[in-house]
Amino acid sequence: MTQVFNFSAGPAMMPTAVLEKAQTELLNWQNQGTSVMEVSHRGKYFMELITEAEKDLRQLFNVPDNYKILFLQGGARGQFAAIPMNLGGEKGKALYLNSGHWSATAAKEARNFIELDEVSIIEKDENGVISVSRTDFSDIAEQYDYVHYCTNETITGVQIKEIPNVGNAVLVADMSSDIMSEQVDISKFGLIYAGAQKNLGPAGITLVIVREDLIGKARQATPSIWNYETQANADSMINTPPTFAWYLCALVFKHMLAQGGLDVYKKRNAEKAALLYSYLDQSAFYRNYIAKANRSVMNVTFSTDNDELNAKFVAEATAMGLQALKGHKVLGGMRASIYNAMPIEGVQALIEFMKKFEAEKA
Amino acid sequence: MTQVFNFSAGPAMMPTAVLEKAQTELLNWQNQGTSVMEVSHRGKYFMELITEAEKDLRQLFNVPDNYKILFLQGGARGQFAAIPMNLGGEKGKALYLNSGHWSATAAKEARNFIELDEVSIIEKDENGVISVSRTDFSDIAEQYDYVHYCTNETITGVQIKEIPNVGNAVLVADMSSDIMSEQVDISKFGLIYAGAQKNLGPAGITLVIVREDLIGKARQATPSIWNYETQANADSMINTPPTFAWYLCALVFKHMLAQGGLDVYKKRNAEKAALLYSYLDQSAFYRNYIAKANRSVMNVTFSTDNDELNAKFVAEATAMGLQALKGHKVLGGMRASIYNAMPIEGVQALIEFMKKFEAEKA
Repeated sequence: MTQVFNFSAGPAMMPTAVLEKAQTELLNWQNQGTSVMEVSHRGKYFMELITEAEKDLRQLFNVPDNYKILFLQGGARGQFAAIPMNLGGEKGKALYLNSGHWSATAAKEARNFIELDEVSIIEKDENGVISVSRTDFSDIAEQYDYVHYCTNETITGVQIKEIPNVGNAVLVADMSSDIMSEQVDISKFGLIYAGAQKNLGPAGITLVIVREDLIGKARQATPSIWNYETQANADSMINTPPTFAWYLCALVFKHMLAQGGLDVYKKRNAEKAALLYSYLDQSAFYRNYIAKANRSVMNVTFSTDNDELNAKFVAEATAMGLQALKGHKVLGGMRASIYNAMPIEGVQALIEFMKKFEAEKA
Repeated sequence: MTQVFNFSAGPAMMPTAVLEKAQTELLNWQNQGTSVMEVSHRGKYFMELITEAEKDLRQLFNVPDNYKILFLQGGARGQFAAIPMNLGGEKGKALYLNSGHWSATAAKEARNFIELDEVSIIEKDENGVISVSRTDFSDIAEQYDYVHYCTNETITGVQIKEIPNVGNAVLVADMSSDIMSEQVDISKFGLIYAGAQKNLGPAGITLVIVREDLIGKARQATPSIWNYETQANADSMINTPPTFAWYLCALVFKHMLAQGGLDVYKKRNAEKAALLYSYLDQSAFYRNYIAKANRSVMNVTFSTDNDELNAKFVAEATAMGLQALKGHKVLGGMRASIYNAMPIEGVQALIEFMKKFEAEKA
């Protein structure tokens, strides 16, 4: 079989070593004669697993002691609802920064649970190039219960590289698509959340890192599985958690530590992205429409000027083992998602194919 | 290694054949060179998988055409909140039948989202024997938006074997712990739901089967991942679903069809339960406290009259490869969960051990 590289935006590729370990012990975990997915979440071995997972995550991502770590169900979209319920109380007000599809979707969902103001923080110039126009909200932020933004918009490939200035207000970040691609200063955030299926593990589990003083303010009508206080007091086990997904996240954290931690991933991710964007910038055939300062290190969008050629590109790439390069339907074109688990060889193989395609079709 | 039998109440044992298949193709699914957990949920192969899973489930469980099948996140406890949001609209009222811990917990959660009346449907006689006291609510049911009950209480091992009579009211059933242990007449229900981790698959995915005319009545403040209308219109993919858990459920459905369908499981489950309860009934050493008519086919509770002996039983059984027999902390004693995946050999091995323990300790 051809060597396959999977550029899926999510569920995304997992580290091969993690999948191999999971495969080896799928029917016999911890020499118990059962699968990890068949044991009680409150049993000795699974409790050890989650304790170790939290320890590894705290070390890897440098999570301060005054932050709780929760593993929940429902995806980032579940948190779109849970965040206003928990941080807004019965009658809160929030500010949502709109940088594209996902931040706008978060605001749309939140409106069912909180009063909110929404501000666009991107602009498009006369050539269609998108850039981030504003990150300082210190003048208005403190009147809100929290300020929400999305660190990386997967559809366009826009990444907010500067943490917005919100003064002493509570900053909430959807980091679903770039979490742990590099170290961030967690103390600048009130809450960070992420669906697992890009950099953390499989789909079906959601990470929430929340400052302790923000816990305990939920509105009465908050489902208990999303009530941060209830879940913090129950080790994220107010109900049966998605144990197999949690186990895979635990393996990913161990793997990332063994690889050298987030500084190593930051360097690798920067190299992969630089390689791809440099190639795009020297090409007259492909174009990327994101301002250099805001180009995502995780999702690289590009396009020819012709929809038919784009479709050919995707089909021929797929046949070569370069999978899932079709852009999101909202934008068209192509998108290469190059999360933590993508090796540089995948990016090199993509560029080789792009060169060949350009030479044939340009 | 000793042959292991896992009596966990959930996450429970899975069919070995399913785990073996998952293991074989964990890194290379559908000859794609990637894991099923790494592919887009909207891609061709995964869409084929969910179509096939629904077809198999409809055949297996005889789901009428006017019922939608949803696969959601958040567990049955998530549905404890989602059901009143969806079926109660802005200002509904519901009746909750209380048969033990789980039905009471469902009512407690629902109170945050709907006005409700709660009626106990169990009673305890002078010897401590629990029985179901009432299943006919046709006189009062129709004044409510729906009537909720739990078909099987895992902690005590009480099963409601007669479908409650609610006249023309909407009957909602939490079938988490006995779904597809036998065929039921789905047309008698407005909505059936179940966490997967007993009879359907791994923890982290929730099945909802809902009659079409009940869809579209959700209150405004319903999280979109739980809005039945939104999810029914989006193939249960309004957000990234727990793809690996869904895949395992699909394998379980295929496996159950290959085994001969629900009539075969009903027969097997009845045999397993009869074997264990018959042994308990002739023993003066162990006792079960559930009236014969209401004994669960899935969770068999038993106890000696001595807490120390119970603890010894659990420890020695574990050492013999008979795992997870400790009763729920609410009740103490022992509990053998003998869901669909438990082979009769497991029950036989348990009885052998019980005889030996009784002979030594009685």
